[in-house]
Amino acid sequence: MQTTEAAQRAKQASRSMLSATHDERNLLLEKLKALLIEKQEAIYDANRQDLTDAQSEQLAAPLLKRLKFDQGKLHSLCEGLDSLIRLPDPLSKVDLRREITPGLVLERHACPIGVIGVIFESRPDALIQIGSLCIKSGNAFLLKGGREALNTNRVLIGLIQEAGKDILPDGFCALLETREDVQSLLSLDHLIDLIVPRGSNAFIRYIMENTKIPVMGHADGICHTYIDRDADTDMAVQVTVDAKCQALAVCNATETLLVHADAAERILPPLFAALIDRGVELRGCERTRRICACKPAEEADWRTEYLDAILSVKIVDSLEEAIWHINTYGSHHTDAIITENDAAAARFMQLVDSAGVYRNCSTRFADGYRYGFGAEVGISTGKLHARGPVGVEGLCTYKYLLCGSGQTVSQMQDGTCRYTHKDL
Amino acid sequence: MQTTEAAQRAKQASRSMLSATHDERNLLLEKLKALLIEKQEAIYDANRQDLTDAQSEQLAAPLLKRLKFDQGKLHSLCEGLDSLIRLPDPLSKVDLRREITPGLVLERHACPIGVIGVIFESRPDALIQIGSLCIKSGNAFLLKGGREALNTNRVLIGLIQEAGKDILPDGFCALLETREDVQSLLSLDHLIDLIVPRGSNAFIRYIMENTKIPVMGHADGICHTYIDRDADTDMAVQVTVDAKCQALAVCNATETLLVHADAAERILPPLFAALIDRGVELRGCERTRRICACKPAEEADWRTEYLDAILSVKIVDSLEEAIWHINTYGSHHTDAIITENDAAAARFMQLVDSAGVYRNCSTRFADGYRYGFGAEVGISTGKLHARGPVGVEGLCTYKYLLCGSGQTVSQMQDGTCRYTHKDL
Repeated sequence: MQTTEAAQRAKQASRSMLSATHDERNLLLEKLKALLIEKQEAIYDANRQDLTDAQSEQLAAPLLKRLKFDQGKLHSLCEGLDSLIRLPDPLSKVDLRREITPGLVLERHACPIGVIGVIFESRPDALIQIGSLCIKSGNAFLLKGGREALNTNRVLIGLIQEAGKDILPDGFCALLETREDVQSLLSLDHLIDLIVPRGSNAFIRYIMENTKIPVMGHADGICHTYIDRDADTDMAVQVTVDAKCQALAVCNATETLLVHADAAERILPPLFAALIDRGVELRGCERTRRICACKPAEEADWRTEYLDAILSVKIVDSLEEAIWHINTYGSHHTDAIITENDAAAARFMQLVDSAGVYRNCSTRFADGYRYGFGAEVGISTGKLHARGPVGVEGLCTYKYLLCGSGQTVSQMQDGTCRYTHKDL
Repeated sequence: MQTTEAAQRAKQASRSMLSATHDERNLLLEKLKALLIEKQEAIYDANRQDLTDAQSEQLAAPLLKRLKFDQGKLHSLCEGLDSLIRLPDPLSKVDLRREITPGLVLERHACPIGVIGVIFESRPDALIQIGSLCIKSGNAFLLKGGREALNTNRVLIGLIQEAGKDILPDGFCALLETREDVQSLLSLDHLIDLIVPRGSNAFIRYIMENTKIPVMGHADGICHTYIDRDADTDMAVQVTVDAKCQALAVCNATETLLVHADAAERILPPLFAALIDRGVELRGCERTRRICACKPAEEADWRTEYLDAILSVKIVDSLEEAIWHINTYGSHHTDAIITENDAAAARFMQLVDSAGVYRNCSTRFADGYRYGFGAEVGISTGKLHARGPVGVEGLCTYKYLLCGSGQTVSQMQDGTCRYTHKDL
C-alpha cells in the first residue's frame, strides 16, 4: 500500500518533471553535493550504526567493506557529481528533423522514461550514484537498498529530497525499506516504467523472472579473452593478466581464456607463469594440460562465472571455433581478441554477438565511467533499448513531435499535398 | 518440437547473417520482388483457395477484404520493396567514436537484434512487408500468420526462401502454422530476441502477458485531439474530421475530442455538423450536450478505443486539464493540439507523455510510411527501445567495439595512461 502510494506520487511527479530545465536539474545536483559535504558527520554516524549492527550479525568482511561509507567514498561521489553536472543535457538531443510535406515537420526529441525502480544491495554510495543519474535524465525514482544499509540510506535519501525541494515536485524520489516493498514494486507495471537491479546473479535473475516491468541489467558476466594465432606474446600475457586479475568479483573480468592451437606452445607457458604468480587457479582442457600442468576443466567450467581467482583455458583450432565457443557459452557481455591480424580482428568483431567486442585490450574496460559516460546505472546484456554500460542516455527515451498548419491525411491521399520526406 | 528446431536454425542463421553485406541483403529484396511478379498466378491461386475456405466458414466481409491478395496489393508490395531497397543500410550507423586513452578507440556500431518472431492476423501481404524489414536489417525471423491465410502464406514464405538461396544461410526464415506453434514460440526466450505481434487489442495483450521475450507493439490506440482556446475554427474542423473519419478501424484515429471551454461554443456546432454529415456518432459530456445535442458519454468512454465511427467529446477548462486527461485516459500513442498559441503548443508537446505529440495536424499521420521510414513493423506504445512507428531502425541494436594496442585497466589505475574521452 505504502509502495503503491510512493509509486503513484512518483508517477505524478515524473509528469511535471518534464518541464524541469537542465539548469534546474544541475542545480539540484550541486545542492546535493553541498549537502553531502555539509552533513557528512550525520552520514558517518548512521553508517557506523549500520556497521555495528552488521558486525553483530556477523556479515562477511567484503560486505562490510561495501557497506562502509567513509571520506574516500564521499570524495569519489562528489567527483562523480561534478562530472555528471558537466555532461551535456541528455534531454536536449533532437536526432531527427524531417519535412513530411511542406509546412509539416517531424522531430524526434529525447525525453525521460518516467519512473525508474532501482533495487540494489549493500553499497549505500550506489544510492547517490544511481539517484543522480535519474535526476540528470529527468526521471522520478524509487530506491530499495540493502537492509543492512538502512540507516545510511535514510540519511542519503533525505539529502536528495532536501536538495530537490523547490526544484522538483514532492515525491520525485522515495526509499523503500522492506522486502515486501520489493514484491509490491515488481507488481506495479502500470506505474513503474523500468526496473534496474544491481546485485548477485541469483538476485537479478529472480527480479527478471518476477515482473512484467522491463528490467535492465545483466545476470551473468562470462567474458572471454581469445589469443589468436597472430597474437603478440607480451601483449597477450599483459592483457590477459589484467583481464583476469585487475579485479576478481566483477562482471567484466575474463573467466575463460581461448587460445589458438598454433599459438598455445608459444604463449601458454609464460602466461601461466604470470597468472600463477598472481595466485590464479587454472583449469585447462586436455590439450592445454599437455602443454602446462593444471586442473582439468569440465563442461560446466565453460558456463561458469567464477568471480574469483580462477580461469578456465581452452585450445581452439580456429578463429571460427573461438567465435562459436563465445557465442555458445558466453553471456554476451564483453569478449576480446588479441591479434595483430586485421582480417581476423574484423571477423571476430563482426561475428561475436556481445555488448562489447574488444581487440588488443582488457575486458575490464567495460564500464560506464571508463567509456566516458560519467557513471553507469549498470551494464545491460539485453539487446533491446540499451546494451553494454548504461549511463544517462539509457535512462532516456524519445517522442515524435509533428508540427503543421492543418495538414490532413486526406489531403495526402487525394493528391492535394505530397510526401517530400526531406531531412532538414 | 518443430518450432524449437526452426528457432534453433534461425538462431544459427542469425549469427552468420552478421556478415551479409548491404548489397547482398538488397539483392535478396530485388530477387523477392522479381519472384512476386513472376509467380503472381501461384499466389492468386493459393489465395483463391483461402478465400473459398474462408467464405464457406462465413468469415466477416472486412476480414475477407484483408485476406484477399490481388494485383493492387502486389503493386504496393513491389513499391514498398523498392523504397526499402533505396533506404540506406541501417547497419552502417556508427553513432559514437571516442578516444578512451591514446591508442584505444571506442565505437558504437549498429547491428541486427538476432531472431524476430512475428505473429500477425489475416493480411498475407504483411508477411512480405515484415519479412522484408527483417531482411533489410539483417535479422532472422519466424512468422506465424492467420490460419485463414495459410495457403497464401506458404507460397509467400517459399518465395522469400527462394530469394534468399545462396545469399543467406538456410533457416533464416520459417513459417509457423499452428496455434500450438505460437505457444512454443512464446516459450523460447533463449532463442527468440523479440516478438512483434500485430492484430487485435485482446490478441496483443495475450501475447504480452504470456512470454518473457520482449514484445514490441501496442495494445490500445486511444488517441486524442485537443482543440485549444486559441484554435482556428476551420482548421479545427478539418483536422478533427480527418483524425476521426479518414479511416475508422485504425490505431491512430482520434477516439476522444477535448475542447477548451472558451472555444466550445464557437467550434463545436460546425464541427458536429461536419462529423454528423460523415455518419459519426457523438457522445458528449454534460457541458458538451448543453451546446450540441448528442448521446451522453460515460466514464468508460474515455477509456474506449472505438475503432468505429464514434467520437467521445469532453469540454475542459484549461490546457492543463486537457494534458491531465490525455495522460490519464490515453494509451500514450498519438495526441494532437490545435492552437495558434505557441506557448500552449510548447507546453502541450512537453507534458503529453505519448509516442507522438502533434500540433495542428491529424493524428492519422502516425505511421512508418508517412514518417518516411519506408514501412513499419508496427507502432510501439512501450517506452523502451523503440517508440512510435517502428521501421528497420527499431529492428537494430548496437554493440561497442573497442580497439587498442595492449591497454590494460592497471595502466589506467597506476597512472601510466590517463583517460582522455575525446570524441573523434
